[in-house]
Amino acid sequence: MSHNTFGHLFRVTTWGESHGAALGCVVDGCPPGLKLDEAWVQTYLDARKPGTSRFVTQRKEPDAVKILSGVFEDDRTDGQVTTGTPISMMIENTDQRSKDYSEIRDRYRPGHADYPYDQKYGVRDYRGGGRSSARETAARVAAGAVARRVIGEDILIRGAVVQIGPHMIDREAWDWDETTKNPFWCPDEGAAQKWETFLDETRKAGSSSGAVVEVRASGVPAGWGAPVYGKLDGELAAAMMSINAAKGVEIGAGFGAAALSGEENADEMRMGNEGVRFLSNNNGGVAGGISTGQDVVVRVAIKPTSSILTVTRSVTRDGEEVDVRTKGRHDPCVGIRAVPVAEAMLACVLADAKLRHRGQMG
Amino acid sequence: MSHNTFGHLFRVTTWGESHGAALGCVVDGCPPGLKLDEAWVQTYLDARKPGTSRFVTQRKEPDAVKILSGVFEDDRTDGQVTTGTPISMMIENTDQRSKDYSEIRDRYRPGHADYPYDQKYGVRDYRGGGRSSARETAARVAAGAVARRVIGEDILIRGAVVQIGPHMIDREAWDWDETTKNPFWCPDEGAAQKWETFLDETRKAGSSSGAVVEVRASGVPAGWGAPVYGKLDGELAAAMMSINAAKGVEIGAGFGAAALSGEENADEMRMGNEGVRFLSNNNGGVAGGISTGQDVVVRVAIKPTSSILTVTRSVTRDGEEVDVRTKGRHDPCVGIRAVPVAEAMLACVLADAKLRHRGQMG
Amino acid sequence: MSHNTFGHLFRVTTWGESHGAALGCVVDGCPPGLKLDEAWVQTYLDARKPGTSRFVTQRKEPDAVKILSGVFEDDRTDGQVTTGTPISMMIENTDQRSKDYSEIRDRYRPGHADYPYDQKYGVRDYRGGGRSSARETAARVAAGAVARRVIGEDILIRGAVVQIGPHMIDREAWDWDETTKNPFWCPDEGAAQKWETFLDETRKAGSSSGAVVEVRASGVPAGWGAPVYGKLDGELAAAMMSINAAKGVEIGAGFGAAALSGEENADEMRMGNEGVRFLSNNNGGVAGGISTGQDVVVRVAIKPTSSILTVTRSVTRDGEEVDVRTKGRHDPCVGIRAVPVAEAMLACVLADAKLRHRGQMG
Amino acid sequence: MSHNTFGHLFRVTTWGESHGAALGCVVDGCPPGLKLDEAWVQTYLDARKPGTSRFVTQRKEPDAVKILSGVFEDDRTDGQVTTGTPISMMIENTDQRSKDYSEIRDRYRPGHADYPYDQKYGVRDYRGGGRSSARETAARVAAGAVARRVIGEDILIRGAVVQIGPHMIDREAWDWDETTKNPFWCPDEGAAQKWETFLDETRKAGSSSGAVVEVRASGVPAGWGAPVYGKLDGELAAAMMSINAAKGVEIGAGFGAAALSGEENADEMRMGNEGVRFLSNNNGGVAGGISTGQDVVVRVAIKPTSSILTVTRSVTRDGEEVDVRTKGRHDPCVGIRAVPVAEAMLACVLADAKLRHRGQMG
Repeated sequence: MSHNTFGHLFRVTTWGESHGAALGCVVDGCPPGLKLDEAWVQTYLDARKPGTSRFVTQRKEPDAVKILSGVFEDDRTDGQVTTGTPISMMIENTDQRSKDYSEIRDRYRPGHADYPYDQKYGVRDYRGGGRSSARETAARVAAGAVARRVIGEDILIRGAVVQIGPHMIDREAWDWDETTKNPFWCPDEGAAQKWETFLDETRKAGSSSGAVVEVRASGVPAGWGAPVYGKLDGELAAAMMSINAAKGVEIGAGFGAAALSGEENADEMRMGNEGVRFLSNNNGGVAGGISTGQDVVVRVAIKPTSSILTVTRSVTRDGEEVDVRTKGRHDPCVGIRAVPVAEAMLACVLADAKLRHRGQMG
Repeated sequence: MSHNTFGHLFRVTTWGESHGAALGCVVDGCPPGLKLDEAWVQTYLDARKPGTSRFVTQRKEPDAVKILSGVFEDDRTDGQVTTGTPISMMIENTDQRSKDYSEIRDRYRPGHADYPYDQKYGVRDYRGGGRSSARETAARVAAGAVARRVIGEDILIRGAVVQIGPHMIDREAWDWDETTKNPFWCPDEGAAQKWETFLDETRKAGSSSGAVVEVRASGVPAGWGAPVYGKLDGELAAAMMSINAAKGVEIGAGFGAAALSGEENADEMRMGNEGVRFLSNNNGGVAGGISTGQDVVVRVAIKPTSSILTVTRSVTRDGEEVDVRTKGRHDPCVGIRAVPVAEAMLACVLADAKLRHRGQMG
Repeated sequence: MSHNTFGHLFRVTTWGESHGAALGCVVDGCPPGLKLDEAWVQTYLDARKPGTSRFVTQRKEPDAVKILSGVFEDDRTDGQVTTGTPISMMIENTDQRSKDYSEIRDRYRPGHADYPYDQKYGVRDYRGGGRSSARETAARVAAGAVARRVIGEDILIRGAVVQIGPHMIDREAWDWDETTKNPFWCPDEGAAQKWETFLDETRKAGSSSGAVVEVRASGVPAGWGAPVYGKLDGELAAAMMSINAAKGVEIGAGFGAAALSGEENADEMRMGNEGVRFLSNNNGGVAGGISTGQDVVVRVAIKPTSSILTVTRSVTRDGEEVDVRTKGRHDPCVGIRAVPVAEAMLACVLADAKLRHRGQMG
Repeated sequence: MSHNTFGHLFRVTTWGESHGAALGCVVDGCPPGLKLDEAWVQTYLDARKPGTSRFVTQRKEPDAVKILSGVFEDDRTDGQVTTGTPISMMIENTDQRSKDYSEIRDRYRPGHADYPYDQKYGVRDYRGGGRSSARETAARVAAGAVARRVIGEDILIRGAVVQIGPHMIDREAWDWDETTKNPFWCPDEGAAQKWETFLDETRKAGSSSGAVVEVRASGVPAGWGAPVYGKLDGELAAAMMSINAAKGVEIGAGFGAAALSGEENADEMRMGNEGVRFLSNNNGGVAGGISTGQDVVVRVAIKPTSSILTVTRSVTRDGEEVDVRTKGRHDPCVGIRAVPVAEAMLACVLADAKLRHRGQMG
């Protein structure tokens, strides 16, 4: 992982600030001959789009993607396909209202990247959070759409929010179909109702709330990943922790495994009709850094945004003590918007793992 | 991160299997002129050494490190110093009793890497876990000793176990001095007593227990790390997840942040005598991927080892259903041995971040 | 070096095909606070622009660069400056005449990348050479303009053509000022006259000619680079060989050194007013992979383009034997256009070496 | 390429100084299941061994390799095979005569790395050249032996010296069998006789001579490599330029192509019994960065060593002007010893290209 690139063979480099002319990514290492056009990528960007409920910010960006390179179509190809050369995708920023940034440029918002950015770089594009804005995740989602072509349709990636604030879902009530019926990607109908009330209160109070996101990949064959520092779970951890506001990552039983005994935690094996069958999945589909053939299960903890109406104490660039209060639009729970991003990161890590596996086996 | 290498400018490549002739590492990118000799590295290896209490395996390895390259001494140097060339370190395996491996070579131990390794590679050195053995961590600890020279004495790295099985420490009772007085690296005297009883029972029952390890770095200046995919917390997540049996990583408030409100989670700032002073550290010393100057705080969840006396159900390489039971020595709680390893990984990530910061700022 | 990225800390990723919507690059790792705007980059692109004499192709591209990210300006900055985040630059392709590509799509032009591309990828954008077009070098030149900001004004980079076809310059007659007075970047007035006649004949005959380009960097301090696989000359070799049509690279005396004796080749040293003074520069400014403080001197051999009017024998995609003849515009000597590209690559390698040196020394 | 690592998927990290305890390498990324034992590697090391004629230094090192990890043998494997884990190989230095280094430690030998090393690192192991010694190439040759297993027996790698001093071979007289019949790897019997006289004189005069080495790989399939910065010839250039004393690299016609016309240089194609047949190989088996299926042909210019009996002018570490004269053993033509090294580098680059090709195509 380089600073603005992730992946090893399926490599994604993103660029762009919140209030610049555009943002985008270059996907290098995509194999040739895969179907890819703007409509396919747009589908995933639309799923990510903010402004779809009162629980996510009302910024109205069309987020229309342009594919600038790496694809080709003639009468010999099956529609537009990848060529094996770098795929450059761009999304223009259309919602750059001219604004007064005098406050934000000098006052460090607690919990934000303002202070460490200034400490490091001395100069920063403070408009809308600049490079640390969640806008950057649009580029990841576009890359994730390409990654899905690489891993193919046999691998199914899905995501859900499993906790908002202190309220967890009931795992017994899990129903994937529910995730598209509420504005929270919540797989538990009952929890979704509670969250609605909870987040309405949060929003009205000018406060915000943390969340836990869970993403799963089904259909991953056994054998992807590698031991030691190329572990599939290590790659997943780095990928998920790179999402804005992420503060924790776990695989399978995760932190819960700390409380288990060896017998409880061991994923026992029997023979099934199609080979080995596991009796549980505490390992979350990865053992010794290599996929086992079970579902890959990852959870990410997303902190509550610090952009709140409540006044918090801070300092200015010049060392003056001040009170800070975020006006205008903001998300009461940024974790909700993290679901399509975490799915995209999972897709990218798997695409990379698939290609690396090919390159490892000779 | 390559498969057996971690770090970008401070790069550590480890090699070796549990029952091979030796294991070791090559540390590339260490700056010149730093004091380094075998005694310094040995100190850290000795702290890691198993066989020091009844709670860790009784394998008696001296783990004597040899530095084979990258250091030099003459009458102009202040003792033996690094030269800027690769530092090769080797630890010979002396405890390779000839043994009957016929069971382990065919039976997949649940929760172990046996099955996915075979699925991937077709061939594996099954003796003692081969490459997936915790023996590999000796090489990391040696590399960590070099990393400490790179980051210097102003940065203090410490670690502790904060949970064993379901039993957490009382954070109010935290005392670093306690960590060296009990065999658990436990910072809470009361918890240590409870753990002793709990682990004795676990051991007698032939079972095992998970744990949570916490490591901290004090004195890290603001500005290390980088946004997006070079985040300091992303690097930490990958590094910690690469530790054997790790299933989760969190920074600062971590998963706990999901339950907090924006006000509770925001790390407010005031001016102190030496610049900015934070009123809390929920960010764990990292915001937007960049260090804030506060303590860097990382926790790792370690699952209970699946090497237990209790019989578990499994299958053989040839698809036969069998019962598996681990005989002989084993750790009731491998998390204890993870403390010096997690400290070493933290040191390595910081050494790399320091050098990368230099290389970023021009 | 990844497939479409070069550099380690100063990293350039290029994208785009000859006849796509646009082409560009992302420069990651540029330090913050450096002056950078479109005018600065455009200066270097204009120097590269084809269509300036009858010896280079008449394609009229304005090659107007847009900087899409990574720069910022407010009243606290000295004009527009870099922020340390990725700099995305784009050049739109305006000269995409709709054309009949039916010949080029099926016939492999000898000496071109057509055949191996098809063998590898199965699909390719054959219009104008696609990804293997010299259009790609515009992105390198843009990146090189950024690199010049990183290395600063104390390092002077210059380039020249020193051989066209069998006609070499007279090194005794070298005058840098001459390079801007003729259409060949030729530092020898006499040679320039001969080349004019030679290339006019070459052009009229529908043929083409090879060339040798020489680039030099003055002011590079001693100590950049590193031994073994991070050698400054190794980086230069890879960078120069990546230029279209390059078939050879040499440093200092280069292949000429093979014919020398040890005494003739040794760069003897004496003390000068400002430290060590070398009596010759057969090493080309690099010894043991590390800069010596002398001029860095690199030469690149550029083969004659295979796009010629003369008929050559070839085969089609379907294995039919055919005759191939390139109609329309073409360069009689592509080596001329390689000068600004080789300069840009030299600037990029030095920028990277500067940052890596910082990161190595701790 | 990192400083002491080369390759991307087939990665070789070397370590060790001339007069340290040992030197060696770690080969990461080797696929599993390939036959590999010490005898196989030793064969290649023996071919490299100095001390076999009066034209190479008389240092008597047995250069016995130990494989410390990454291989395994049981009754299910076909002898000892690779496991896919890192292969650590070590060669102990046995010829470390205690010597007086007081001269070499302070006096910079012209043409050597002494001065830039000191400028960069401030400290260096000056004994026998330290890290810049040709001893390091033993580790490359060992790695090359592993690489040959990866590329398999269908690819034949051979090398020769084609020029010593001003004396080139007659290419018409090329006979591979001759290369093993004279101490120069010379493929031309007549040239070998002339070189013998020439080098005897050079040696007696206490002088040294440069050389050009040519290596070839037959049987490389079309399609390996990649465009732009992952070009197969770019990788070869970097690899060859990393060899000690290398000052130039060329592919196919190389610098000679500069003097050719487009018609002369174009490698025309016809259909043969087994597909496309090229009528010439000026491209040296690589077009657009991708292999064409023809022989890959690379030449490296090796400068004359500066270790000569003749007195040369230099300076000391403290800025004093001195005369330098190398006593004791030295090679009159280090280029001869570069042949097995260049072959090894070619094998490594091809092994890497093969694995990368797998990883690119998905």
